[in-house]
Amino acid sequence: MWANPNSSGLTRIKRFGPLTWWVARPHHPQPQFTTANLQTATVIDGKSIAEEIRSGIDKEVRRMKESIRKVPGLAVILVGERRDSQTYVRNKIKACEEVGIKSIVTEFADGCTEDEVLNALSNYNQDSSINGILVQLPLPQHLDEGKILDAVSLEKDVDGFHPLNIGNLAMRGREPLFIPCTPKGCIELLIRSGVEIMGKNAVVIGRSNIVGLPTSLLLQRHHATVSIVHALTKNPEQITSEADIVIAAAGVANLVRGSWLKPGAVVLDVGTCPVDDPSCEYGYRLMGDVCYEEAMRLASVITPVPGGVGPMTVAMLLSNTLDSAKRAYGFT
Amino acid sequence: MWANPNSSGLTRIKRFGPLTWWVARPHHPQPQFTTANLQTATVIDGKSIAEEIRSGIDKEVRRMKESIRKVPGLAVILVGERRDSQTYVRNKIKACEEVGIKSIVTEFADGCTEDEVLNALSNYNQDSSINGILVQLPLPQHLDEGKILDAVSLEKDVDGFHPLNIGNLAMRGREPLFIPCTPKGCIELLIRSGVEIMGKNAVVIGRSNIVGLPTSLLLQRHHATVSIVHALTKNPEQITSEADIVIAAAGVANLVRGSWLKPGAVVLDVGTCPVDDPSCEYGYRLMGDVCYEEAMRLASVITPVPGGVGPMTVAMLLSNTLDSAKRAYGFT
Repeated sequence: MWANPNSSGLTRIKRFGPLTWWVARPHHPQPQFTTANLQTATVIDGKSIAEEIRSGIDKEVRRMKESIRKVPGLAVILVGERRDSQTYVRNKIKACEEVGIKSIVTEFADGCTEDEVLNALSNYNQDSSINGILVQLPLPQHLDEGKILDAVSLEKDVDGFHPLNIGNLAMRGREPLFIPCTPKGCIELLIRSGVEIMGKNAVVIGRSNIVGLPTSLLLQRHHATVSIVHALTKNPEQITSEADIVIAAAGVANLVRGSWLKPGAVVLDVGTCPVDDPSCEYGYRLMGDVCYEEAMRLASVITPVPGGVGPMTVAMLLSNTLDSAKRAYGFT
Repeated sequence: MWANPNSSGLTRIKRFGPLTWWVARPHHPQPQFTTANLQTATVIDGKSIAEEIRSGIDKEVRRMKESIRKVPGLAVILVGERRDSQTYVRNKIKACEEVGIKSIVTEFADGCTEDEVLNALSNYNQDSSINGILVQLPLPQHLDEGKILDAVSLEKDVDGFHPLNIGNLAMRGREPLFIPCTPKGCIELLIRSGVEIMGKNAVVIGRSNIVGLPTSLLLQRHHATVSIVHALTKNPEQITSEADIVIAAAGVANLVRGSWLKPGAVVLDVGTCPVDDPSCEYGYRLMGDVCYEEAMRLASVITPVPGGVGPMTVAMLLSNTLDSAKRAYGFT
């Protein structure tokens, strides 16, 4: 189904009936890149923008505390022993502490029952000191993710993954209570980098419920012309190469090569694939979906991995939790 | 914002701040069409396919009646005196009668209150003989469309316009209770015409909540690569001309010219614009979004207006109402 698997750097693997999946292949520099194209993209410093946002949230939390003696509260439910999930949760909790948001984590063993998780959710739904509830994904296979996410109170769904929130995000004339954190972070980066979205051709690579789908819906709200490229797209390189804005969220290291990009494109890289690297502390490092060196020579603006979109996701979670608390307490 | 307003046959009109609207212009044949391109598209007979579907529904309703002594029930709420809305409602009621679905209409005057409509809805929500509730759109300006549509019981939302239905349509791994009728009819036409959707480049023109948006979501569920073109798209002609499947739902007569189409494209025309025509019985006739004569020479498959997508919308409404009744009565 790939027009030219060799040049795209991918192998197609067939699984689950008609569906195919992207699989990363080793990175071989592409011959068409010569010293002739030496444009260097402006690198968006996501870490510093996120810090700025967190500093603003910190001030707002203080103002709330001084004014009404309340602080926002975030509850996190973590199931199982996935190391990456544990790291993500730890980072979120640390970020809450830094801005004065109260946080609490309920951990369950891998083999817990659905009812145990639903009970914990129900308690947090009723707890008026909790303004945001987050279920760390992915959940173990034996738990019904849809059923569990549906049980999060809409008013506390700070991840924005409830289908009613997604429906309201998709529909014109409606407003979701929360916008999912990573897509919201992407748009924030675009706006703060002075990138106009309205009328631009945007390509979203990947169609996950947590990034690709809500990002495409949010770009449409900002009046971009959006195309959604996925593993079954026959000519992803060609479609992507016509985009003014590329948001890569396939989760495949080095998927997007230089040849996929129009010169001057704005490139946001949401991918964070762990790849083995013995020289790193933990034996691996995170790589994005975009072949950074190649993209640097073509893009006008680009986010690095790490330090691009990633820090914004946590900042937007704090922002959603603060907004939820303001709404709950009628604090403006 | 249009690359070349003259060749696209459109005038741009600025209204409501940054938004622009498509306005149809008189139809001038394009010079690039010569006798050299005389391909003739296969015309999808939507009327006959819809009749076939209705005949199947008729049989199912009889089987239900004989087996459990129940028939599906549809309630329609019509507000105001719009002639087009009255015609649509009359057609739906007639279609119900023909297949044995019980139907009931509650009409309100233009100046009715929101509470009157909400009360009627509430009664239908509670009435176990009613399996589908339909609020004919558009509603008069003074009524809150979102609030009224949200009040339709999810289990009876046969139009599929509730944001929870739209959210479940958008998200992978979830199933909406109902798929909006026109988008469902479009996919049905494609499938019955032997058009493969998976992996194809599809362009949806227009992003209304009732057609464009759900059609784009549904095409994605069928694994097409979807681009959504709208009034703020800078190069709609170019993007559309790369599509294998074009679904035009902008509501602008003759928007899609031959030059917008790739030879061999599949073209579904959802537009129904009334244009003055003294030779017609009512002084006007319905025109599609697609310039039919030009498209006929390029497309491989095309729907006419009228007689294409239109009849399918009503057939899908009957189908959704039947499905709802089967679900309510546990009838398989």
